[in-house]
Amino acid sequence: MSLKTELKKRLAVIDKELEVFLPIYSDPQGVIFESMRYSMFAGGKRLRPILMLAACEFVGGNKALAMPYACALEMIHTYSLIHDDLPAMDDDDYRRGKLTNHKVYGDGLAILAGDGLLNLAYETMLNTVKDFTGFSERKIKAMLEISQASGVHGMIGGQVVDLLSENKKIDGDTLYFIHYHKTASLIIASVRAGAIIGGASDEELEALTRYAKNIGLGFQITDDILDLIGDEKKIGKKVGSDLQNQKSTFPSIYGLEYSKSKVIELLDDSIEALQPFGNRATFLMELAEYLVKRDY
Amino acid sequence: MSLKTELKKRLAVIDKELEVFLPIYSDPQGVIFESMRYSMFAGGKRLRPILMLAACEFVGGNKALAMPYACALEMIHTYSLIHDDLPAMDDDDYRRGKLTNHKVYGDGLAILAGDGLLNLAYETMLNTVKDFTGFSERKIKAMLEISQASGVHGMIGGQVVDLLSENKKIDGDTLYFIHYHKTASLIIASVRAGAIIGGASDEELEALTRYAKNIGLGFQITDDILDLIGDEKKIGKKVGSDLQNQKSTFPSIYGLEYSKSKVIELLDDSIEALQPFGNRATFLMELAEYLVKRDY
Repeated sequence: MSLKTELKKRLAVIDKELEVFLPIYSDPQGVIFESMRYSMFAGGKRLRPILMLAACEFVGGNKALAMPYACALEMIHTYSLIHDDLPAMDDDDYRRGKLTNHKVYGDGLAILAGDGLLNLAYETMLNTVKDFTGFSERKIKAMLEISQASGVHGMIGGQVVDLLSENKKIDGDTLYFIHYHKTASLIIASVRAGAIIGGASDEELEALTRYAKNIGLGFQITDDILDLIGDEKKIGKKVGSDLQNQKSTFPSIYGLEYSKSKVIELLDDSIEALQPFGNRATFLMELAEYLVKRDY
Repeated sequence: MSLKTELKKRLAVIDKELEVFLPIYSDPQGVIFESMRYSMFAGGKRLRPILMLAACEFVGGNKALAMPYACALEMIHTYSLIHDDLPAMDDDDYRRGKLTNHKVYGDGLAILAGDGLLNLAYETMLNTVKDFTGFSERKIKAMLEISQASGVHGMIGGQVVDLLSENKKIDGDTLYFIHYHKTASLIIASVRAGAIIGGASDEELEALTRYAKNIGLGFQITDDILDLIGDEKKIGKKVGSDLQNQKSTFPSIYGLEYSKSKVIELLDDSIEALQPFGNRATFLMELAEYLVKRDY
């Protein structure tokens, strides 16, 4: 099976589970469920859930145990996009070719849909330990990984510095801080939490962490490159928006050629990290290449 | 000791703990810590933490175990106020006589400070179970109570309906839904989670739930009454804002006299719920009277 077919298959399995966690209720607050679903099913690639489940699988774990966590991660990712698109933040009208949440439901409901998804992520994870049916210690550790990566010392911290850097020239360290916290942090947590739930050895967890740090950063630098020279049809959004918004990016600070070579360096190191594990690392390695070497 | 002195003492203990969970870091995202602290230490009465600790004490539990949960509750309460005050929601410039978070830090940072506090609440609670040092089952149950009460079927659900009801005439059922979900829900969770951590018997938990439902609703109806006929000096905000905003309230739907008698009825029932427990219920009973029969 080609990687693209494999990813489609995995995406469909995750979407089916997400449907279970996000039903529509006809309660008086019904519109919030519609609003959360609108953004949740707006064409996301489910990369974080796919990474989490793959890491769990890689260490020989039971993917069914990791599934609610994979869904919770996607809820956290989606809430962060909804809030990020608000007029008070990036002020984006479109995402993946569709109107952003607040353009459809209004700013107030979009704020609440984001809050609702963040809270639902924790409800979803906590529900997996309520009966202490097994592996509770691993699950708690996974929740801690995810909560720290999502919080003020992780993703939210990155968003704060991103917001403070609007229309400003920033230096390489600041850009690295933003990329690492805003994007890589949750990707690292996806991989680590999946591995922890799957019962990873210390050696496996260490290798996977190195793998995830590389692809987390590589993924974001690739995004920066694509925004500059990508094919609009392939990336599904306008090229040049960072330039237009005077947003500092990896290419704007370090140049395009260095950025491209940095991506290759990160990809190589992510693959090297998993080399000792032979064949069972194949999917994760292919995934790294797919994420980091997207078309440009 | 008078109740007011006792409450001040308890507030000081809680504030000292909150300081521990909300330090200032000089990281690049440092301003988010200032922003979260600004709203956290803006004069809140810590009613939810006080209720939680009192419920834990009532059932003979160890208050130290409940303390991080009490702080987490206050973080959740505070995040909900920050988001509620935003222009996209209630659009309030002042709260407790001080500028609201977004008036000081801007809308973007206020959104992130709210997100940060919600996430920190879960980080704080999860940290208490990371070493499985004891009572983990009770703690997980308490987290579930809190997460459900805060989410789309609880507090957020109430905020959604409140938002949808802006500038509309609503019926009694809708108002009850808003009051129950937006206000009572988290108050009930405060009491129940504290009791659960303290090791409540079924009988104790049932009585405390009845107590909390009554004061949760009574507290909000009293708020509605105070907004209509309160003493501005005593309540610390302008009287008549609900009328001015054409906001439906308990008195506007049911009349002032019925509202007053409803408060007394709820208070009586909250006290009756704890009657079988004799002296050890004294503080909770006094607290009910304090919360529900504030000056008007």
